[in-house]
Amino acid sequence: MRETDVLRLIATRVTAAGDDAAVVPFKGTNLILTTDMLHRETDFPTGTTPRTIGWRSVAVSLSDLAAMGARPLGVVLALADENLAEKLVSGVLDGALACCEQCGTHLVGGDIDRQRELTLVSTGVGEAARPVRRDGARIGDLICVTGELGRTAAGLNLFSSGEMEAANELFCFPPRVEWGMKLAHLAKSMLDISDGLAHSLHLISSQSGVGFTVEWKRLPIIPALSGQITGENLRDAILFTGEDYELLFTVPADLVTNIDPTVRFTMIGHVTGHGFLLDNEQLPDHGYEH
Amino acid sequence: MRETDVLRLIATRVTAAGDDAAVVPFKGTNLILTTDMLHRETDFPTGTTPRTIGWRSVAVSLSDLAAMGARPLGVVLALADENLAEKLVSGVLDGALACCEQCGTHLVGGDIDRQRELTLVSTGVGEAARPVRRDGARIGDLICVTGELGRTAAGLNLFSSGEMEAANELFCFPPRVEWGMKLAHLAKSMLDISDGLAHSLHLISSQSGVGFTVEWKRLPIIPALSGQITGENLRDAILFTGEDYELLFTVPADLVTNIDPTVRFTMIGHVTGHGFLLDNEQLPDHGYEH
Repeated sequence: MRETDVLRLIATRVTAAGDDAAVVPFKGTNLILTTDMLHRETDFPTGTTPRTIGWRSVAVSLSDLAAMGARPLGVVLALADENLAEKLVSGVLDGALACCEQCGTHLVGGDIDRQRELTLVSTGVGEAARPVRRDGARIGDLICVTGELGRTAAGLNLFSSGEMEAANELFCFPPRVEWGMKLAHLAKSMLDISDGLAHSLHLISSQSGVGFTVEWKRLPIIPALSGQITGENLRDAILFTGEDYELLFTVPADLVTNIDPTVRFTMIGHVTGHGFLLDNEQLPDHGYEH
Repeated sequence: MRETDVLRLIATRVTAAGDDAAVVPFKGTNLILTTDMLHRETDFPTGTTPRTIGWRSVAVSLSDLAAMGARPLGVVLALADENLAEKLVSGVLDGALACCEQCGTHLVGGDIDRQRELTLVSTGVGEAARPVRRDGARIGDLICVTGELGRTAAGLNLFSSGEMEAANELFCFPPRVEWGMKLAHLAKSMLDISDGLAHSLHLISSQSGVGFTVEWKRLPIIPALSGQITGENLRDAILFTGEDYELLFTVPADLVTNIDPTVRFTMIGHVTGHGFLLDNEQLPDHGYEH
């Protein structure tokens, strides 16, 4: 099956499917649960260090928690590899622990296993009194993104050209956990851009029953990428390449000045009644399939 | 590295390592987190149905929660396969949902991915006001096991001899969640026998700083297995083969009659000051390495 068909099948069977993470009411608040699988062939280009592998493995789950506006409570990590060499295991732990620390949480457990292809699965558990979903966008809301777009694409280009140190640095992206928590009481819809900006905009639109219009010239493109590629290539990388792990959110215009000044974000457009427009042209809904 | 060396390395870096699941204090109680990775080659013999694969994948995590005396709050499941055929995905979901339901909890989310070898990682989150660890066994306590031993070994033999229906049935073991919760206020130490009875006894002993003496004739062996093999083979299967997923626990002798009558358990020996004895002979600490 295609991944979208699998997801559709799962959505009919699993109650909480269809957001960045699952929401489980508990003790007057909500537990937020998310799990992500990464593996060598698809997710880690040649030159990715064990530390980056560990960092990125837990970062993708922490980014999902951030997208719900959740405070992380703990992360567990399952690691499988053919040899489980000490250098690999130790490096993965270094990266995973450092990323957890940066996000104010802890790696609390895991599992190890032998398998031919290096595989990592991280699961994050968080708490959110008011989780931010994807279905709250309303006509007139501003559409914003945190940080800069194109970080993963820029990293991939650097891996290809052999600039391993800079590539690894870009691949260790900071999950926007603190910003997500600060946005939780203002953002009406939010997700992380793990499947490309275009698909992420379409997800919010379809789940909220709205349209959008965004402007290319407003997109905050990371200098590393705009120095590497231009024109159509740059456009494709930003709109349709996955794994940016910034937060895309909508906020009522009269609340935007209430956003905590430490949250670095850019307004890129606004929510409309219908139509999916980039610079007045239809933006197709295709993106990265994991 | 050998698995034990990897675990030792991890234990020096991850605070909560060294029990069936991690304990995270939260809102006056504790969240219990556990994650388990299974894959085709090691864990699922030829003839294992998709439903059994789904069942067993979540059952191993629910068993870890049971071993802490925790009430499950939710399970997430990551599934990777080369083709993600509808029959596979649908069957895995059937089994995972059925097992969650039997344990009074829900499958709340997951991840899917493409990978050559079928791989599943389940993560269970539970709650336990007083989690039962492995270090509370005291001299004189009774040593008990729930249910019957040898279920997985019997299942493997049936898979080998082509009796697929009966084999699948045995492989869909019931996680002892309800019993674990009922034992939580009486058991002083507890774990699930996922690495063989001998190794499980040694784990409790080393973490509690005690010894044990158990009797072969008291062990509750599942009839399916004692009908298949005898003598040394039976002894090896029970003592040193992993994955029984029954609960091994210790309880003070004067409390044993307080155990809820719906918990089916057998006393197999008692905790001593030193020595690791089966029928007055040393029981070596070797067991199943995943």
